Amino acid sequence: MTIHTAEEFVIPQKIPFEVPLVLQNGQVLPRFDLMVETYGTLNADKSNAVLICHALSGNHHVAGRHTHEDKYPGWWNNMVGAGKPIDTEKFFVVGLNNLGGCHGSTGPLSANPASGENYGADFPMVTVKDWVHSQAMLADYFGIAQWAAVAGGSLGGMQALQWAIDLPERVRHALVIASSPKLSTQNIAFNDVARQAILTDPDFHGGHYVRFNTVPRRGLRIARMMGHITYLAEEGLGKKFGRALRGEGYQYGYGIEFEVESYLRYQGDKFSERFDANTYLLMTKALDYFDPAAEYGHNLQTALSRTQAKFFVASFSSDWRFAPERSHELVKALVAAHKPVQYIEVESNHGHDAFLMEDEPYTRAVRAYMNNVYKELQA
Amino acid sequence: MTIHTAEEFVIPQKIPFEVPLVLQNGQVLPRFDLMVETYGTLNADKSNAVLICHALSGNHHVAGRHTHEDKYPGWWNNMVGAGKPIDTEKFFVVGLNNLGGCHGSTGPLSANPASGENYGADFPMVTVKDWVHSQAMLADYFGIAQWAAVAGGSLGGMQALQWAIDLPERVRHALVIASSPKLSTQNIAFNDVARQAILTDPDFHGGHYVRFNTVPRRGLRIARMMGHITYLAEEGLGKKFGRALRGEGYQYGYGIEFEVESYLRYQGDKFSERFDANTYLLMTKALDYFDPAAEYGHNLQTALSRTQAKFFVASFSSDWRFAPERSHELVKALVAAHKPVQYIEVESNHGHDAFLMEDEPYTRAVRAYMNNVYKELQA
Repeated sequence: MTIHTAEEFVIPQKIPFEVPLVLQNGQVLPRFDLMVETYGTLNADKSNAVLICHALSGNHHVAGRHTHEDKYPGWWNNMVGAGKPIDTEKFFVVGLNNLGGCHGSTGPLSANPASGENYGADFPMVTVKDWVHSQAMLADYFGIAQWAAVAGGSLGGMQALQWAIDLPERVRHALVIASSPKLSTQNIAFNDVARQAILTDPDFHGGHYVRFNTVPRRGLRIARMMGHITYLAEEGLGKKFGRALRGEGYQYGYGIEFEVESYLRYQGDKFSERFDANTYLLMTKALDYFDPAAEYGHNLQTALSRTQAKFFVASFSSDWRFAPERSHELVKALVAAHKPVQYIEVESNHGHDAFLMEDEPYTRAVRAYMNNVYKELQA
Repeated sequence: MTIHTAEEFVIPQKIPFEVPLVLQNGQVLPRFDLMVETYGTLNADKSNAVLICHALSGNHHVAGRHTHEDKYPGWWNNMVGAGKPIDTEKFFVVGLNNLGGCHGSTGPLSANPASGENYGADFPMVTVKDWVHSQAMLADYFGIAQWAAVAGGSLGGMQALQWAIDLPERVRHALVIASSPKLSTQNIAFNDVARQAILTDPDFHGGHYVRFNTVPRRGLRIARMMGHITYLAEEGLGKKFGRALRGEGYQYGYGIEFEVESYLRYQGDKFSERFDANTYLLMTKALDYFDPAAEYGHNLQTALSRTQAKFFVASFSSDWRFAPERSHELVKALVAAHKPVQYIEVESNHGHDAFLMEDEPYTRAVRAYMNNVYKELQA
C-alpha cells in the first residue's frame, strides 16, 4: 500500500481575513483567522471541492495525522482520506475550525484588537449563518465558486443545510447527517443545563477566567459528562458497561463504583482540559438558535424551495438527541419542495455518535453517494 | 361536600426507634426517627393498612394540607384521600420520610450521637433493603402484621417490589408504578453526573457544608435541572414550551431566552433551596444499588418466586427514565414465576412524572385495583 504523505501528515494552515465580518446579531468582527486543513488536490476547474463542517466539539483536523506521534487521527478519519468514502484522491477536502472555536480560528481565546487582551466573554455570539458566511469567504479564498459537496454530522449537518438555503448556487450536494432542522425543546433544555454548569462555576468569572488564571473546569466537565450521555444510547452503553462494577461488590461511597462512571468521568476530565468553556457556550447557543425555517415564515418547505443542491440525509436508529424523526421532517419537506433527496436510516447501537463511527452500511452509502457526485463532475 | 378534617389537615408525627439498625453496608444506626403521616383509620384487625413509599425527592407528606396557608397539598394528593383511588375512608394510609431523608426522619441533617454535630457526610449509605427493614419496624409499631398494599412510583415502586421479595408474608398487594427492577446503564450515568455536580461544588466541603455555613446550591441546582429533563418527555415539553422565547427575538446572551430555560432554572432554584444535598446523593446511590435479583443469581424470576403478593404494575408511554420495557421485564418475570399481576401501560405525554399526575385511565385503574383489594379484605 502506498503511503500518501499528503494525507498521512497534514499541515494545518491559518488563513487571515483582514476584512470586517458583520454577524447575525449586528456585531462586527474587525478581522478573523480560520484554521484550515485540506486534503487532496483542487482540480483545474475547481469543481471537486468538498467542505466538511464540524460539530459541537470538532475542529479543522478532519483526517490524517499531524506527526508520527499523534495518538489519534482527525475526527472523521473513517470517512475522509485516500480510498475512503469521501475520497481525497478524487476530491479536494477542506476542514476548518469555525469562528468562535478554540483550535486556532478566531474565538474567545484570540486577542481582541480593541483591548489587546483575549476576547473571553466579549467574543460575539456567532450563529450557523455566520459560519456559512465565513466559510463562503474561505471558498472565495480558494477560488471555489461552488462546492461539489458540503457535508457534516450533527451541528455540521446544520451548516450543510444552511449553506444549501443561504447560498443555493454554491452547493451541488448537501450531506446532512444525524442532524435536525432545529433543536427540540429537550435539546435546548440539555444545552441550558450544560451552560448553567459552566456559567455558575466560581472559576468562570463572567467568562474572563483567563484574566484570573483559572479555568471553569468543574462546569465544563459536568457539561461534557451530561452531553456525552446524550450522544450515546442505552443500547450501546448497556452492551458496553451494563451494571459492571469497578471493584468487588458495592463500595458504599462516592468513588467510582460502576464502570460507566469511570468512563464518563474520564471523558469529562479529558474534555475539560482540552476545550475552552467560552467556545462550548457559544457552540451550544449556535445550536439553540439554528432554525433556518424561521426566516421563511417557519415553513421548512418554503425555506428548502430555494435550494439547488441534491441532498443526502442519514440518521441512526438509536440516536435520541437528533432522532430519525428529525431527519424525516427534513426529508418530507425536501420531497414536498420537489428537491432530490436520498435518505438512509442506519441501524446502530451507537446513538448520536454513530455518525463518527465505522459502520458498514453507513460508510457504503456515503461512498456510493460520493462516487456519484464524482461521476457527475466528470460528465 | 363534607370536609374531612382528618384528611384536610394532617399532622406529621415523628416516631422514635430507640434500637440499633444494622444496615446493608454493615454500618449501624444506633437509633433513628421516622417522620410519618397517616390518613384514615386502622380497622380492628389491622388489615386495611396501605404503605406509600416515596421517590427520590418525596417525603412523608403524601396527601392533604398541614394548614390553611399551605399552597400545595402532599405529593400524591391525586391518588390518596377520601373518595380518591387509594381511599382513606377505606384504608389506613401511612406515608413516611425514608431514612437518610431531609424532612424529619433521621438523615444527614440529624445529630450524630457520636459527635453531637450533624451527620453530614458521615451518615451511612442506606439502601432500598434498609428502607424496607425500617418500614417493617414502623409496621410493627402500628401493630400491622401485613400491609393490605405497599405502593409507590419510581424509587417508591422499587420499595414495594423489595417488600414483596424480602418480607413476602407481610404484603398482600404490591403496586409498582413507573418503576424498574434495576437501573439501566444510562440511569446510573445520569445519577453519576448529578452527584459529580454536587461533589465538586466548592461549597460541598466533603459533605460537611453545614459546619462551613454553606450549601452546595450550585451543584444541587444543576443536578435537579438535569434530573428534571429526565422526568419529562419531549412530547410534553415540546407541547408546553416548544421553542417559545421569553422576549422578542434572540438576545444573543446567556440570560433566559427560551421559556423552557426559565422553567428549568426555576425548578433548579426552588429545589436547591428546599432539599439537602447529602440526602440527594444518598437517594441516587440507593437507586443505583437497587437490584433485588442480584441476591438470587441475578435471576428476577427466582427472586419473585418467593413473593406472596398480588401485583399491580403500571408504566407510561413517554417515560424514558423507566420506560415501559422496564415494567415489561418485571411483568414477564412475574408471569414466568406464576404470580398474579395486573399491568397497565398508560398513554401519556408527561414522561416519568406521569405517575404523579392526574390522568383518567391511570387513576381509574388504581381505583379499580384498590376497590378489589378492599373487597378482598371484607371477604
